[in-house]
Amino acid sequence: MKVVILGAGNVATHLARAFSSVGHDVMVWNRSEGALNAITAELGCPCTTEMAKLHRDADAYIISVKDDAVEDVAQQLAQCLGRTKAVIAHTAGSLPKRMMDERFRHGGVIYPMQTFSKDKALDYTEIPFFVEEEGDVLHRLAESVSEHVYSLSSEQRKVLHLASVFACNFANHCFVIAEDVLRQIDIPFSALLPLINETTQKLNVLSPREAQTGPAVREDDAVIGRQIHLLDNRPDLRDIYIRMSNSIRSYKLGDKNYD
Amino acid sequence: MKVVILGAGNVATHLARAFSSVGHDVMVWNRSEGALNAITAELGCPCTTEMAKLHRDADAYIISVKDDAVEDVAQQLAQCLGRTKAVIAHTAGSLPKRMMDERFRHGGVIYPMQTFSKDKALDYTEIPFFVEEEGDVLHRLAESVSEHVYSLSSEQRKVLHLASVFACNFANHCFVIAEDVLRQIDIPFSALLPLINETTQKLNVLSPREAQTGPAVREDDAVIGRQIHLLDNRPDLRDIYIRMSNSIRSYKLGDKNYD
Repeated sequence: MKVVILGAGNVATHLARAFSSVGHDVMVWNRSEGALNAITAELGCPCTTEMAKLHRDADAYIISVKDDAVEDVAQQLAQCLGRTKAVIAHTAGSLPKRMMDERFRHGGVIYPMQTFSKDKALDYTEIPFFVEEEGDVLHRLAESVSEHVYSLSSEQRKVLHLASVFACNFANHCFVIAEDVLRQIDIPFSALLPLINETTQKLNVLSPREAQTGPAVREDDAVIGRQIHLLDNRPDLRDIYIRMSNSIRSYKLGDKNYD
Repeated sequence: MKVVILGAGNVATHLARAFSSVGHDVMVWNRSEGALNAITAELGCPCTTEMAKLHRDADAYIISVKDDAVEDVAQQLAQCLGRTKAVIAHTAGSLPKRMMDERFRHGGVIYPMQTFSKDKALDYTEIPFFVEEEGDVLHRLAESVSEHVYSLSSEQRKVLHLASVFACNFANHCFVIAEDVLRQIDIPFSALLPLINETTQKLNVLSPREAQTGPAVREDDAVIGRQIHLLDNRPDLRDIYIRMSNSIRSYKLGDKNYD
């Protein structure tokens, strides 16, 4: 297929890699040149900062920019392409498909649920893609790289994206804080890797609730008190410590739940 | 070596397994019988609820009970054993070695830094053991099961334990919340596993700060606002969402740090 990717951030770069790797004809547009050069150098695909130079006959145009820039890029693209039979999609977990439908005949969303860092290679076959469209172009495109492609409505995708922020972004922030705490005693973050590894490996055999350990779920108030005291000079972390501990206890007692 | 383990919780059960598996002569004491039966059934080692029946000639007695019960078990053990040349250790990250030194000639600490759930098997060779003692009995014991044994003072261990609560217990709680959020749209938690897996795999090649992604580190206020709104009926989660997002931003801007 002929695919145009608009954007050159983490997600856009990985999509360009993924689609190129399975033989699609990929072109990339970005507002500024910097990030484009790295993509040209790596993938050798045509890249441009001028929308007027984009292929007019692509099967799909995929807007993969910061959420609050999607509207603007969509508008420029609509002016540039005019009426087109191609699918125009964005990749944002939190934005509705409606944003595309308002401007294009075939709007869509193709949301790959993964944490993308440019410098970290990924096995694209394992990444779940959540797709929303009338036809099947985006489904076929997603299925050409991944074994896990699902249809999902805009409303459902918003909730899924929220869950992924907790599971990925906030969990990673807990690792950032742990690294910061360790700095006081000159122990490298790598000492925590077996623990972190096991924390996630457990989830293949236990639910996260079953897997929960630590002073809060044991209701070990003596430890909790001492650890809060250790954070006396870091009110920001003390605050997070107290709220997370209280939340763990609430879930254990069953008084917090979407059920 | 002859090892007596006092306790039958998650850590105690895994230590009994680990030490048995490399051929040590293990005996387990616990206050109540319930959890002991499972250990006897699995390992076939002698178990008792009566301290008077413990081996008198063990090389090490390891108290592995809830932190606020350590003092009490240590006191009973001191009355039972009298003066002994054996090492008497606890396994608590947050408690000082001093608690043992006050009652025994050879006090010590052997802290395995891992998340232990009884029903989840572990590769003990990969678990870091942090040891504090005058002699070498605990070091030899730890080295008989693990390739990663370190000496660490009580003060340092307290900080390490705090870091592990963030890296393991609080990260897992983020997974608990994600599972709860997903319940609204009938998507199983397993859909998040590729994302969670990659979140921790990344840490082998990127520092947690480099690995941070998501709306907060992108300063994507539009997404943040919409996600907070999605949590209107869950003020407990909205509160955690806001604080974690603010903390991610503070770390990005560099104004929060132990440096």
